[in-house]
Amino acid sequence: MADLTARLAELVGDEHVLPGEEQPDYGHDEALGATPQAPAAVVRPGSADEVAAILKVAAEQGTPVTARGSGSGLSGAARPVPGGIVVSFERMNKLLELDEDNHVAVVQPGITLTELEERTKAADLVYPVYPGELSASLGGNIGTNAGGMRAIKYGVTRHNVLGLQAALPSGELISTGGRFVKASTGYDLTQLIIGSEGTLALVTEAILRLQPRLTQQATVLAPFGTLAEVTDAVTKVVKSGVAPLILEYIDALTMGAITYTNDLQLGIPDQVRDSSQAYLVVMLENADADRLDEDTEKLGELLTGLGAADVYVLPGPSARRLIEAREKAFWTAKAAGAQDIIDTVLPRAALPEFFTEVTRIQQATASGIVGCGHAGDGNVHLAIFQADDQARAGVLEQLFAAAAKLGGAISGEHGIGRGKKSYFLASTDPAKVELMRRIKQAFDPSGVLNPGVLFD
Amino acid sequence: MADLTARLAELVGDEHVLPGEEQPDYGHDEALGATPQAPAAVVRPGSADEVAAILKVAAEQGTPVTARGSGSGLSGAARPVPGGIVVSFERMNKLLELDEDNHVAVVQPGITLTELEERTKAADLVYPVYPGELSASLGGNIGTNAGGMRAIKYGVTRHNVLGLQAALPSGELISTGGRFVKASTGYDLTQLIIGSEGTLALVTEAILRLQPRLTQQATVLAPFGTLAEVTDAVTKVVKSGVAPLILEYIDALTMGAITYTNDLQLGIPDQVRDSSQAYLVVMLENADADRLDEDTEKLGELLTGLGAADVYVLPGPSARRLIEAREKAFWTAKAAGAQDIIDTVLPRAALPEFFTEVTRIQQATASGIVGCGHAGDGNVHLAIFQADDQARAGVLEQLFAAAAKLGGAISGEHGIGRGKKSYFLASTDPAKVELMRRIKQAFDPSGVLNPGVLFD
Ligand SMILES: Cc1cc2nc3c(=O)[nH]c(=O)nc-3n(C[C@H](O)[C@H](O)[C@H](O)COP(=O)(O)OP(=O)(O)OC[C@H]3O[C@@H](n4cnc5c(N)ncnc54)[C@H](O)[C@@H]3O)c2cc1C
Ligand SMILES: Cc1cc2nc3c(=O)[nH]c(=O)nc-3n(C[C@H](O)[C@H](O)[C@H](O)COP(=O)(O)OP(=O)(O)OC[C@H]3O[C@@H](n4cnc5c(N)ncnc54)[C@H](O)[C@@H]3O)c2cc1C
Repeated sequence: MADLTARLAELVGDEHVLPGEEQPDYGHDEALGATPQAPAAVVRPGSADEVAAILKVAAEQGTPVTARGSGSGLSGAARPVPGGIVVSFERMNKLLELDEDNHVAVVQPGITLTELEERTKAADLVYPVYPGELSASLGGNIGTNAGGMRAIKYGVTRHNVLGLQAALPSGELISTGGRFVKASTGYDLTQLIIGSEGTLALVTEAILRLQPRLTQQATVLAPFGTLAEVTDAVTKVVKSGVAPLILEYIDALTMGAITYTNDLQLGIPDQVRDSSQAYLVVMLENADADRLDEDTEKLGELLTGLGAADVYVLPGPSARRLIEAREKAFWTAKAAGAQDIIDTVLPRAALPEFFTEVTRIQQATASGIVGCGHAGDGNVHLAIFQADDQARAGVLEQLFAAAAKLGGAISGEHGIGRGKKSYFLASTDPAKVELMRRIKQAFDPSGVLNPGVLFD
Repeated sequence: MADLTARLAELVGDEHVLPGEEQPDYGHDEALGATPQAPAAVVRPGSADEVAAILKVAAEQGTPVTARGSGSGLSGAARPVPGGIVVSFERMNKLLELDEDNHVAVVQPGITLTELEERTKAADLVYPVYPGELSASLGGNIGTNAGGMRAIKYGVTRHNVLGLQAALPSGELISTGGRFVKASTGYDLTQLIIGSEGTLALVTEAILRLQPRLTQQATVLAPFGTLAEVTDAVTKVVKSGVAPLILEYIDALTMGAITYTNDLQLGIPDQVRDSSQAYLVVMLENADADRLDEDTEKLGELLTGLGAADVYVLPGPSARRLIEAREKAFWTAKAAGAQDIIDTVLPRAALPEFFTEVTRIQQATASGIVGCGHAGDGNVHLAIFQADDQARAGVLEQLFAAAAKLGGAISGEHGIGRGKKSYFLASTDPAKVELMRRIKQAFDPSGVLNPGVLFD
C-alpha cells in the first residue's frame, strides 16, 4: 500500500493523493442504506494522461479502482471496495471548448451540470439533460446514463453524448465518436461506455451535443382522481403531438410532502386536493410565445377531457419552485425515513397495470410505497418504507418481478451499481450476463475497474 | 459441405437450403466494384429458433455466416466468403405488433422499409428513418446503422431502435432493451449490435420507436453561387431553430445528372442555374399548416440573406420527385460510371474546409469527385470517377485523411464492410481496433460471423 501511494504520488503529486481513512466523504454516494467504505487512497488526477497512468499502475498491482464524480449517484456505484482507490475527477472540471458552430461542448468529466448550464446559457445553447441533482458531474452522468425530467423530449445522456476520450486499464487512451451525430465506422464504443458505471473505462473527456435554447416555457398542473387516470393521460398527451418538455406524475402523498417541505403554495382548493390521488405536471417550451400559448390551451382542453379535476397554468415562479421541489423528492423521501428508492422503467402504457401491482404488493407486505416519476418515459421512482431488511428485499423482488412481467427493466436511469446487483443477477438471462462479463473482460482483463458493481 | 447442407436442411426444411452456386444474387450487395462471391449455400430460416440453431451448427463446424437483408448495402458487408453460408432473412419479414399506445412496432428483421411505411401510415404513426433505398430491410438497417435524409431531425437507426432479439454463435437467443427509450440496467447491447454489420450477432427481432406522423410538409430549394456558401448556410439553418426534417446539399453536376436522368423540370431560369455551383434542399414538417407557412417564409428570408440566388418553394409533386431523384443519386452515379462511392462524416461546420480539400485532391489526381449529402449531419456522399485502381485508392486515402484531420470518420451510415476495411484499419488507433476485436471475440469466439468485415 505504501508502495502504491508512493507510485501514485509520483504520477499526480503528493498533495493529490489523500489517505482514504481521512476522507469519509469518498466512502459513499447517495444510495440509501449502504454502509460507507473508506478507500485505501483518494487520487485526484489533473489530466487524461495521469488517469491513464494511474490505471496502468492499478492494473499491474491488481488494485481496484472506483471512479467518482460528485458522489450523487443512487446505486452505490461510487462506493469503493476495501483496499481499492478512488479516482476523483474534481480537478478535471473544465469546459474545454464551446463550439457554437457545431453545437457541441467538449468537457472534462468533473464539470458539474450547474457549471455547464451557466456556460451554455451565455451562448443561447443548452445541454438538455437535467437529472434532479445539478451538482452531479458529467462523468457521473455518463457512468449512470443519467436521465431526468426532460428526457421525454431530448432523450437521456446516451442520446446527447457524441464522443468520449477514455482511459483503459492497459494505460491506453482511446477516442470514440466525434462532433457528429452519427457514424458507421466500427463498434459504437461511446454507447457501450455510457451507463457502464465505471466498470469498463474511465472517461477523461466528453463531446456533448447542445441544442438551441428555447426561451418560452409554460407549466401545467393537473390533479386527477386516480393514479390510473394520470398514467392513462400520459399516453394521450404523447399522442397529441404537443411534444412536452416535461411529463411527470406525482402521487398525492409525495405532492403533500414536497409542497410541505418546500413551503410551496400552489393555490389548489382543499376540495380538489382532497379528492385527488395524483397529479400530472406538463411543461411545454417553444421559441415563440404565441405558439406556446396555443399549445398550452390545447393541452389544457385535452387534460380536462381526460378527467382532470382542474387545470392550472402555473405562474413562472411557482412553476420553477414546483419543479425544484420535485427534483428534491429524493431528499424529502430520505428525510421521511424511506429505506430505499427504486427507479423501474416500463413501457409507458403499462404504467396503470404496474400501479395496480404496486398497490397489491404494498398491502400484502404492509409497506409504504409512494412516488413520482418521469411518466412520459415510463420511469417510476418509488420510495420504499419498510424497516425490516428481509421484508424490504421481498418487496423489491416483487416490484422488479412485476415490472419484468410487463416488459420493464430494473433501472431507468440510476443504474444497478452495488445496490441493485442481486436483483439484476437474479432476474437477467444468464446468457446475457455472461456476455456482459466477457465484454467487461475485453476492456478490463485484470478486473480492477469497479469490481462488485453489476457483477459479483 | 454435403454434411452441412444436410444438417441445415434438417433445421429449416429442404426447400429453404439453396445451393450457393445457383444463386448469384446472393453473392453481392450494391457496393461498387466488388467481385461477387457465391456462398456455399443460402439458408432461409423461418424463425428466431431456426436462426439460433443454424448459428450453433455453423460455429461447431467453423463455417462462416453472412447475414443478408435485401442486399442493398454499399459496403460489401453482405457479400459472403468462399465456403461460407448466407443466412437470408427474406422469410422473416413480418410486422409482429403495432403497439399504438407505446408508439412501438415489433418487427422481424426481413421486413422492408416500404412495408413498414405502409403499415405505420395506416395508424398515423411513422418510423422516421428513411435511407434512400426503401427495399432495404430493417435487419440491414440495423447492421449498417442506416441513416438517410431525415436524420437531422429524428436521428439514425441507432436512435430509433429500442430493443432487439438476437442469436449468438453459441446458439443462444438474447433479448435487449424494451419498449422504453432508456434503461440503466447493464451494458447497452442494443447499441453495440447496431452498426456491427453482422459481425457480433444475428438480429431476429427488433423493437422500433415510432413517432406521430406529421402531415404538413414544405420543400424549399435554394441555388447558391458556391459550395462554401451552401455549407455555411447549413450551420445557420440549424441555429435558426426551424428544425428541418431534411437538410441536403447537392452539387451542380449531381443536380444536373439527377434532374436529367429523372426528367425533372424544376423551373430554375437558365441564368440562375448557370451561375450556381450547388443547391440546398430543405424540407420542413409540421402538424399545423399555418405554422408551416410561417416557418417556410422565415426560412426563405434566412436563405436569401445568406446569399441564395433565389428561393423556390416547390409544389408537392415536384418536391416529391426531387427527393426521389436525390434518393436515386447512387444509381445515377453508377450509371455515369462512378467507380466508388464514399460517405464520410464530418463536424458540420468543417464542411467548407473539407470541400476545399476535395477540390485540391480532385485536381491533383485528375479524378472526378462529385456529390450530394446529408449536410445537416455533416455526411458527404461523394462519387469517385477514377478508373485506375491504384490512383483511386490514393484518392480515397487522401479524402479519408482530410476528413480525419477535420475530426471526421470514414463512414456516416454505409458502414466499413469489406470495401473500406483497409482504410479503416490503416487510419484507426490500433488500441481501439484491438479493443473492438476483443469485443468481437466476446460475442463470437469461433469467429464465424461475417469474417473479413471490419477486421482481417
Ligand atoms: C436529489 C437527487 C436527485 C436525482 N435525480 C436524478 C434524476 O432525475 N435522474 C437521474 O438519472 N439521476 C438522478 N440522481 C442520481 C445522480 O444524480 C446521477 O446518477 C448522476 O449521474 C451522478 O453523477 P455524479 O457525478 O454524482 O456521479 P457519482 O455518484 O460520483 O458516480 C456515478 C457512477 O459514475 C461513475 N463515474 C463517475 N465519473 C466517471 C468517469 N469519469 N468515468 C467513468 N465512470 C465515472 C462512478 O464510478 C459511478 O459508477 C439524483 C440524485 C440525487 C441525490
Ligand atoms: C440507391 C441506394 C440509396 C441508399 N441510400 C442510403 C441512405 O440514404 N442512407 C443509408 O444509410 N444507406 C443508404 N443506402 C445503403 C443501404 O440501403 C443501407 O445500408 C441498408 O441499411 C441496407 O439494408 P439491406 O437490408 O439491403 O442490408 P444488406 O445489404 O442485406 O446487409 C447490410 C448489413 O447488415 C447485415 N445484416 C442484414 N440483416 C441482418 C440481421 N438480421 N442481423 C444482423 N446483421 C444483418 C449484413 O450482414 C450486412 O453487414 C442506399 C443504398 C442504395 C442502393
